[in-house]
Amino acid sequence: MARQIITGIRLAAMTAGGVPYGLVEDAAVAVEDGRIAFAGERAALPQGWSDAPGQDFGGRLATPAFVDCHTHIVHGGHRAREFEMRLQGASYEEVARAGGGIVSTVSATRELSEDALVAGALPRLDALIAEGVATVEIKSGYGLTVADELKMLRAARRLGLLRPVRVKTTYLAAHALPPEYKGQANAYIDDVVLPGMDAAHEEGLVDAVDGFCEGIAFSPDEMARVFDHADKLGLPVKLHAEQLSNLGGARLAASHGALSADHLEYLDEDGVAAMARAGSVAVLLPGAFYTLRETQLPPVDALRRAGVPIAVATDCNPGSSPLASLLLTLNMACTLFRLTPEEALAGATREAARALGLAGEIGTIEPGKRAELAIWDVEHPAELAYRIGFNPLHRRIVGDAA
Amino acid sequence: MARQIITGIRLAAMTAGGVPYGLVEDAAVAVEDGRIAFAGERAALPQGWSDAPGQDFGGRLATPAFVDCHTHIVHGGHRAREFEMRLQGASYEEVARAGGGIVSTVSATRELSEDALVAGALPRLDALIAEGVATVEIKSGYGLTVADELKMLRAARRLGLLRPVRVKTTYLAAHALPPEYKGQANAYIDDVVLPGMDAAHEEGLVDAVDGFCEGIAFSPDEMARVFDHADKLGLPVKLHAEQLSNLGGARLAASHGALSADHLEYLDEDGVAAMARAGSVAVLLPGAFYTLRETQLPPVDALRRAGVPIAVATDCNPGSSPLASLLLTLNMACTLFRLTPEEALAGATREAARALGLAGEIGTIEPGKRAELAIWDVEHPAELAYRIGFNPLHRRIVGDAA
Ligand SMILES: [Zn+2]
Ligand SMILES: [Zn+2]
Repeated sequence: MARQIITGIRLAAMTAGGVPYGLVEDAAVAVEDGRIAFAGERAALPQGWSDAPGQDFGGRLATPAFVDCHTHIVHGGHRAREFEMRLQGASYEEVARAGGGIVSTVSATRELSEDALVAGALPRLDALIAEGVATVEIKSGYGLTVADELKMLRAARRLGLLRPVRVKTTYLAAHALPPEYKGQANAYIDDVVLPGMDAAHEEGLVDAVDGFCEGIAFSPDEMARVFDHADKLGLPVKLHAEQLSNLGGARLAASHGALSADHLEYLDEDGVAAMARAGSVAVLLPGAFYTLRETQLPPVDALRRAGVPIAVATDCNPGSSPLASLLLTLNMACTLFRLTPEEALAGATREAARALGLAGEIGTIEPGKRAELAIWDVEHPAELAYRIGFNPLHRRIVGDAA
Repeated sequence: MARQIITGIRLAAMTAGGVPYGLVEDAAVAVEDGRIAFAGERAALPQGWSDAPGQDFGGRLATPAFVDCHTHIVHGGHRAREFEMRLQGASYEEVARAGGGIVSTVSATRELSEDALVAGALPRLDALIAEGVATVEIKSGYGLTVADELKMLRAARRLGLLRPVRVKTTYLAAHALPPEYKGQANAYIDDVVLPGMDAAHEEGLVDAVDGFCEGIAFSPDEMARVFDHADKLGLPVKLHAEQLSNLGGARLAASHGALSADHLEYLDEDGVAAMARAGSVAVLLPGAFYTLRETQLPPVDALRRAGVPIAVATDCNPGSSPLASLLLTLNMACTLFRLTPEEALAGATREAARALGLAGEIGTIEPGKRAELAIWDVEHPAELAYRIGFNPLHRRIVGDAA
């Protein structure tokens, strides 16, 4: 029987509604078979635990292990040359003629085997894990054929077997229209997105269905077809919405009870209200905002007032956010979006778990949840968002594997 | 006799004036007693080297080891609580009343022993080294008494003994006016800055003299007194100039033949011309620009046109730039300041070396220079600036210790 006590910690339990950060100064966490049996003041540890094997962390800070709830870490190639061309003054057309843009990532992803996709993603996954991530969402969306989308999802699932991390896979065939379907979005949905969803679901590869609702991608009407199909299969949905303009994507997603709507720089009050009613999480992605030098800020105050839960994520992808650090994401969420450090930390734990439908399992340190903790060499939880490009992780604890 | 050949590398020698990045595809570097004897195409390796012991790096990219030419990594405390208060909406006065601002770092630094300062700085130094840094400049400037400034410089020098890294120390007593000298800048210069410079120089602790020329710090006339004294001692100077306003600090620094002027967001054409004439390096600090949400960009085009060398650095400090990643600094220099990836990489190697008066020793990979290389798991040097929060370092090579 796997029982252990974790002591010598200042606990940021990240439970909602109590003291800031759910902070407990001299805390203990009791773990039984990978689940938390007790978390709170050490003095209140229930009888019967005094003889359990323990680990003392010398006063370090414990938080829930991190959750990166929006990534594209499985992909072929990189876009460093495109990054360079733009900084050398190349126009959008010149970059496109040189083979840049999302099309280049699609080509590179199609060319790679599942093994090669796994090998390419591992360093990115390892970078996330090294900062305390224990759960990562990974999207498809650079294959854009049934076979290549399935290949991406299989690669994502393999990553979860190769590393001690929980992988949630999201089917994102409605990410971009591939060149071979130019001007024929509905044909692409008929030929690829819907049958691919069926095939991926049959193979058990889909935890959620996502899309990109934008002028350069899919309209709300087109996305509605995708979501209707997901509803039929009983799959939860989420959406890249209101990133570059306001098409009402978040409202559409909310009408399907979406787990989350993501980006949201151009979200209006209507969309905020719809998300609040549906209980959808607002996933903010400051890495893309930073990389694209966007100036339109997401409506953080309106989200707060409406009680919409706010998560943050890396959006790790080769084009608009080649960012592989969730700690840096916390800093960007504060510096660029003016979240408080507590909101940012909740956004990478409690609310990120909720955005993946895992609110009952992870994201806070309280009885009944999985024992997934990060132990940090810091005094105060605000330090996690304050520092830039510095990783104070001391230890990640996942279940019984400490 | 320590002789070795490094092969299996794509070499970004970062020599100026030739092909981009000084790139050599199938390269070899021959090292003798810690200095580069040959660097170029493997096929051109001189006779007599074929039997030297070798290391093959399997086609990885080699660059000069990184140089962080502007840091404040020796300091007491952190300012995470101040960061949090500001994001919770506290006014400048409320933060000051709660003990925030540079005064809090000065108090914390004065309280610590030299040993404690060393222990506090080591994780920051280790983070830099882990990204390929082999030379780091470290400033005093949070002691603001003779004894505490010397303590900081001794701590900085100790760091260079504890880790395989070259430390250059900069005397920065003219960083801020301590509370006990409020309104008496010249008295502070007489009582502390000048005698402290003498004492630190006598102890061999000073590689350069620096100051902060700004409305909230020291005027050009006050800084001139400090630089005149440095001139007498034969110490090179540099200056925090034109960060928040244009006081003509760069012009003053140039008139003393400064190694560099740093920050420079508000630098005008006159200042650019003065720097060009003096050969002073423009050290850009995008971490502070980012953290302060500055909108005034440094005059990068004017610096280019005038041929002023451009370096980049972390400015790692607890207030305006708690940034401990030189790789992230490259990305910020491109994304925020629109440097090209090649300029950013030169700024963390060749031009950073020049800003420390080390242009003849390090900063490029060419015969006669120290064999200090970074070997990276990337295909193209632009990737080093393109990725965000990801460290592809494979190995750092410093002298004979490979
Ligand atoms: Zn995305
Ligand atoms: Zn500085």
